[in-house]
Amino acid sequence: MASNIVKFREYMKLIGQLKQVERTGWVRNGVKDPESVAEHMYRMAMMSFALPSDSGLDKDKCIKIALVHDMAESVVGDLTPWCGVSKEEKSRREEEATSRITSLIPGEGGKEMYNLWLEYEHQKSPEAKFVKDMDKLEMLFQAYEYEEMHKKPGHLQEFFDHTRETFKFTTEFAENWCKELVSQRSQSLEDSKDKSTTESDSVVPEAKKRKKEELEAENV
Amino acid sequence: MASNIVKFREYMKLIGQLKQVERTGWVRNGVKDPESVAEHMYRMAMMSFALPSDSGLDKDKCIKIALVHDMAESVVGDLTPWCGVSKEEKSRREEEATSRITSLIPGEGGKEMYNLWLEYEHQKSPEAKFVKDMDKLEMLFQAYEYEEMHKKPGHLQEFFDHTRETFKFTTEFAENWCKELVSQRSQSLEDSKDKSTTESDSVVPEAKKRKKEELEAENV
Repeated sequence: MASNIVKFREYMKLIGQLKQVERTGWVRNGVKDPESVAEHMYRMAMMSFALPSDSGLDKDKCIKIALVHDMAESVVGDLTPWCGVSKEEKSRREEEATSRITSLIPGEGGKEMYNLWLEYEHQKSPEAKFVKDMDKLEMLFQAYEYEEMHKKPGHLQEFFDHTRETFKFTTEFAENWCKELVSQRSQSLEDSKDKSTTESDSVVPEAKKRKKEELEAENV
Repeated sequence: MASNIVKFREYMKLIGQLKQVERTGWVRNGVKDPESVAEHMYRMAMMSFALPSDSGLDKDKCIKIALVHDMAESVVGDLTPWCGVSKEEKSRREEEATSRITSLIPGEGGKEMYNLWLEYEHQKSPEAKFVKDMDKLEMLFQAYEYEEMHKKPGHLQEFFDHTRETFKFTTEFAENWCKELVSQRSQSLEDSKDKSTTESDSVVPEAKKRKKEELEAENV
């Protein structure tokens, strides 16, 4: 028992670390007080919870994959393509960390966590593919929310471009949700451009304004 | 479809808000950059995931209760006994908010979320009781971690006192985990007292030091 308690304490510490690890993509782009890896996984689990009952997927499994898929980041940090670590090396480090964390949970629980992580890592099942879709979609929602929150329309365009260029959604609902989000964001960008044009109109120098009035008078 | 997409966008916004809601207990006690409600629920879900397979509880259900139990706080905030809101009024507001959020998810998914929240709110099942234990235990772990992180031993004593006075763990493993944590913290507090005594010894004024040396010399 004592040994299990010591292991559980270590497990708690490592899982707690996920509250401290900031998502690298936001840090790189100067987002103030960005979300943690734990927060990202929380919303992904809640997106999985919202899975329609006719999806044909095992919802509880999706929730659990969402909860464990980035747990290694408590040890290795949030490695992105910009971190200078090869895909193979990233995968090796994450496997080692996941193995270490899940070995702290005795019996079937730890094994289940590890196997779900592996299923996600190798994209072995429809559930793993769905959660990968949620990973990208949650990021895009967050990017748009940060743009709105910090009043910087278009500031995180890179995330939308990179996802479009390198990723293909595998589930229809994720694809639909993404389209809707992109369309809403485009509309917001248009609105903010119109607004900034109107604003710049209202502060045009007096001389320019008079010139405009003269031109308008000529057209009458 | 369009209508469901609009609802899903609202759901995402509200769930995303949980990343922004700071836990009141830490704010009240001046903890810098405290965890969010989403982070608290994330670790609770991971504690439920670590449930021993011989516990007799439905693990997946525990995970889901952990994920939804505080979701209303995206709307009503984190109300504590110090907020001046009666228990009944708190419960009423939380029911209303949970109902609003879960109604955004069509079909069985939303109903399941609401029913799990209700089960927790009324402590109707062994799973709901276990998650309540995890709610308190996660808070105590976090309190101890903040004390260590900010080098303020004993600073969050109130959380340990309040839990001991007002709460009784219902599961044996939660009780054991809590005992172990309290014992570890007591040891840390003793160690920090010893350390501060030693440190104050090392900075005793010269006169006092000489007196001590004289007394030691007399004893030889």
